[in-house]
Amino acid sequence: MHGLMQDWPLLCHRIIDHAAKVHGKREVVTRSVEGPIHRTNYADIRRRALKVAQRLDREGIKLGDRVATIAWNTWRHLETWYGIMGIGAVCHTVNPRLFPDQIAWIINHAQDRIVMIDITFISILEKIAGKLPSVERYIVLTDSAHMPPTTLKNAIAYEDWIAEADGDFAWTMFDENTAAAMCYTSGTTGDPKGVVYSHRSNVLHAMIANSGDALGAASKDTLLPVVPLFHANSWGIAFSAPAMGTRLVMPGARLDGASVYELLSTEKVTVTAGVPTVWLMLLQHMEKNNLKLPDLKVLNCGGSAMPRSTIKAFDDMGVEVRHAWGMTEMSPLGTVGALQGEFSHLQGDARLDRLQMQGFAPFMVEMKITDDAGKELPWDGKTPGRLKVRGPAISGAYYRIKDDILDAQGFFDTGDVATIDDQGYMRITDRSKDVIKSGGEWISSIDLENLAVGHPKVAEAAVIGVPHPKWGERPLLILQLREAESVTREEILGFMDGKIAGWWMPDDVAIVDSIPHTATGKILKTALREQFKDYKLPSAAA
Amino acid sequence: MHGLMQDWPLLCHRIIDHAAKVHGKREVVTRSVEGPIHRTNYADIRRRALKVAQRLDREGIKLGDRVATIAWNTWRHLETWYGIMGIGAVCHTVNPRLFPDQIAWIINHAQDRIVMIDITFISILEKIAGKLPSVERYIVLTDSAHMPPTTLKNAIAYEDWIAEADGDFAWTMFDENTAAAMCYTSGTTGDPKGVVYSHRSNVLHAMIANSGDALGAASKDTLLPVVPLFHANSWGIAFSAPAMGTRLVMPGARLDGASVYELLSTEKVTVTAGVPTVWLMLLQHMEKNNLKLPDLKVLNCGGSAMPRSTIKAFDDMGVEVRHAWGMTEMSPLGTVGALQGEFSHLQGDARLDRLQMQGFAPFMVEMKITDDAGKELPWDGKTPGRLKVRGPAISGAYYRIKDDILDAQGFFDTGDVATIDDQGYMRITDRSKDVIKSGGEWISSIDLENLAVGHPKVAEAAVIGVPHPKWGERPLLILQLREAESVTREEILGFMDGKIAGWWMPDDVAIVDSIPHTATGKILKTALREQFKDYKLPSAAA
Repeated sequence: MHGLMQDWPLLCHRIIDHAAKVHGKREVVTRSVEGPIHRTNYADIRRRALKVAQRLDREGIKLGDRVATIAWNTWRHLETWYGIMGIGAVCHTVNPRLFPDQIAWIINHAQDRIVMIDITFISILEKIAGKLPSVERYIVLTDSAHMPPTTLKNAIAYEDWIAEADGDFAWTMFDENTAAAMCYTSGTTGDPKGVVYSHRSNVLHAMIANSGDALGAASKDTLLPVVPLFHANSWGIAFSAPAMGTRLVMPGARLDGASVYELLSTEKVTVTAGVPTVWLMLLQHMEKNNLKLPDLKVLNCGGSAMPRSTIKAFDDMGVEVRHAWGMTEMSPLGTVGALQGEFSHLQGDARLDRLQMQGFAPFMVEMKITDDAGKELPWDGKTPGRLKVRGPAISGAYYRIKDDILDAQGFFDTGDVATIDDQGYMRITDRSKDVIKSGGEWISSIDLENLAVGHPKVAEAAVIGVPHPKWGERPLLILQLREAESVTREEILGFMDGKIAGWWMPDDVAIVDSIPHTATGKILKTALREQFKDYKLPSAAA
Repeated sequence: MHGLMQDWPLLCHRIIDHAAKVHGKREVVTRSVEGPIHRTNYADIRRRALKVAQRLDREGIKLGDRVATIAWNTWRHLETWYGIMGIGAVCHTVNPRLFPDQIAWIINHAQDRIVMIDITFISILEKIAGKLPSVERYIVLTDSAHMPPTTLKNAIAYEDWIAEADGDFAWTMFDENTAAAMCYTSGTTGDPKGVVYSHRSNVLHAMIANSGDALGAASKDTLLPVVPLFHANSWGIAFSAPAMGTRLVMPGARLDGASVYELLSTEKVTVTAGVPTVWLMLLQHMEKNNLKLPDLKVLNCGGSAMPRSTIKAFDDMGVEVRHAWGMTEMSPLGTVGALQGEFSHLQGDARLDRLQMQGFAPFMVEMKITDDAGKELPWDGKTPGRLKVRGPAISGAYYRIKDDILDAQGFFDTGDVATIDDQGYMRITDRSKDVIKSGGEWISSIDLENLAVGHPKVAEAAVIGVPHPKWGERPLLILQLREAESVTREEILGFMDGKIAGWWMPDDVAIVDSIPHTATGKILKTALREQFKDYKLPSAAA
């Protein structure tokens, strides 16, 4: 027996329809790439997104065709998202911070037919355009006055391009499982992998993001997403904000502390979202100039762990810090660290301990932690395990890769190692490929690194496991020192002594000139493992 | 091209699984029907709901079979919902306030096989049980110590019944469009009509209810639903609260002002939901005893229009009043009157004007207003039209009724007449069958009634349209006076003069001993129309 409710497929363009109808005058403010502040609203964004759809249709773009965007957070970028998805094409957001060769690889893998691009990134694309046979045309996200000369094929200014459409056009209707968008993850090993979101997953994720414990924005709020639209599905904000009618402030290309502060302050932003680096820059700018943000209520922070001192600084200002965790494969929200009732009155270190955790899963994200054999481990806040997730906005496969990426119960392995406590709060302790397995127990490389960088002479720290005849693996601490500093093994290990369990203590310390990183700023441990592959621990030689 | 996200059907039992796992210790507090306060939590509710599922399975209940509940808001009632739905059976909530004949009619129409019943309602059911051939067994929601003697067939105390199960049982998995629950609407004409919710619609509705602008509860909140589980799908709270991990306080059978106040106060409730009558009783109790509710933040009010004075009283206390509108066919949320940013700083009459409106539609509820011919009318805050709705948690058909109830665009006619302004705020002005059509324009019977009851001698007022040779219809004002009062036509019309447009003024006034009502307390205008069917307006005689 079926229910007798209406058949109403979950389609992304229904979100902008809702925003235009119910919250049509709500502002979308952008610091434009060209410079000035630009103001529009949801009704106009929908009107122009329909023109994008109409123009794409005229270019011959069909259901399932891929259209790339390489752009900052602006109103035009938002319009292209809804325009592309609204005819059932797939919006492929390309991260301009990748190496040019990686950009070429993913555009070719996705077989993008059209590329929408900010003026900022034209020079990058011009260098690789010859290697992109699938691309028929480049739409430059500016007007004719700001259109630079370019060798990009069939390039046209966006404003001229959509001016050719009258907007008398209707969204296409299709199954809610139709692909809406794609985003490639760039791991530290192997080729990038394409995550393909569906209309259903994007709509459900918007509902998750708008629940009271997630991003924390309602229709009376103003939300500034520092997190770029090209990063992990923009944390879903391109969908959740219009679904809620939240006023949006888009920072464009300028993400430094002063620029972000200026927008937060002048536009009276109440909720924001971004990575720890941005908040650290903001904080330094505010402290240096003795500035305040009286309107800011909620600061969402994800992408990597937020330092305790940064959390404390915002918490002391009365800003609710929500430490989040997720990944491109999760649309991306996995957990958010809103304080449940039991913890909302905590003070001091107990409060910071809780805020520093990655938070709990909202409904529609199922989590479990397991050992290497897949056996479930207890939620006791102590036992670390491989973190696996299941839900309607979580990847079930990668684009054009046949491998089955789910376990027998349908869970996806996040590659993270975490503990979860009996209130559902999760804490990331490591990446599973980086955890050090010593005598059957796991040692967190992240915890050791965080401890070591606390030493005043240390600029950056990395811990890798190296083979050991008795324990299997033991930790090696690799340090990059601050300029003109030197340090002894004993000095560093003495600093760490007493702050960790004795058997976690690194067996040795190595000093390097420079710790290698990926294009997106992560420590490249594969390179370190290669570099230290013949390293013999003093303890192993004995 | 399809998205590559996981296949994760939206099933109601996933909600209680989430609550048990992430918010397992969060309390569910009940004023039990037997008297004492009872405390449990989401983990235990899930554990016992699995026993309900296991016992139903043993009784031979299969996918699609109907199981009725006739019960107050208690932890046991919540357990039965998840237990019934968790094996794909259909939870049919019966409103005990209906006339016994209506109860018998809907149980027979639904062909319920088992009835779960509170001790309070045994005597009602004993009187009609002989006319209910489909019912095989009655489960009385109490323990053996409180089990009364009863003639109900195969009656057993709930606690004894589930004690026969060991709980080693798993939920059934099925398509998300499977029927989960049903609820009959009792209009003023014709037979009751069965609304059938699906698992998908209930889950999506829970997400709507948990968005920041809807019910306003997060995991740190305590929510007291005064609205009964048997009324309009409990406003979705049986799903939204566990999905969010919100602490629940269930009021059981005692809904008077003193009892509701006591629970709100002692359990430090932050969010509540119910009909205006309840809030009026609460207010009277608080004023009489000079009481306060410092923890209460949000009061959701729906079911009928909340009087301006009641709104003002709570608003003055600093409680955020959210005036909501919906209907059983909408799961039931249609609009909620949270204040958007533009209105949040309003004061005085302008603030009350806004709070008195029924609010705006959340994403997933589409609204339009049309004339009688179906032509869309403008959202100008002035033009009234038939209010029609579309969405995934809105009825597309009634149970075992073949009629097509949607228009060509798939919208359901709510039967209400409303205006909508350019910010999406909706105001109900009438029921479409009650609106008076005078010379092609519509006069709101509700507005006239609200005005007339403001006269100190008037106890209740009803306005109906009566035939008029020139205007088609003109309003007749029918009054029931306060005890021992009398009033002249001129006195009443003089009181109304200047407060409405001249052409809205009723053509005549009639005094009756008593205005008739339905079982659920609505004015029975069909009976008044019958009573006044030969009435000649003085203006028509001229």
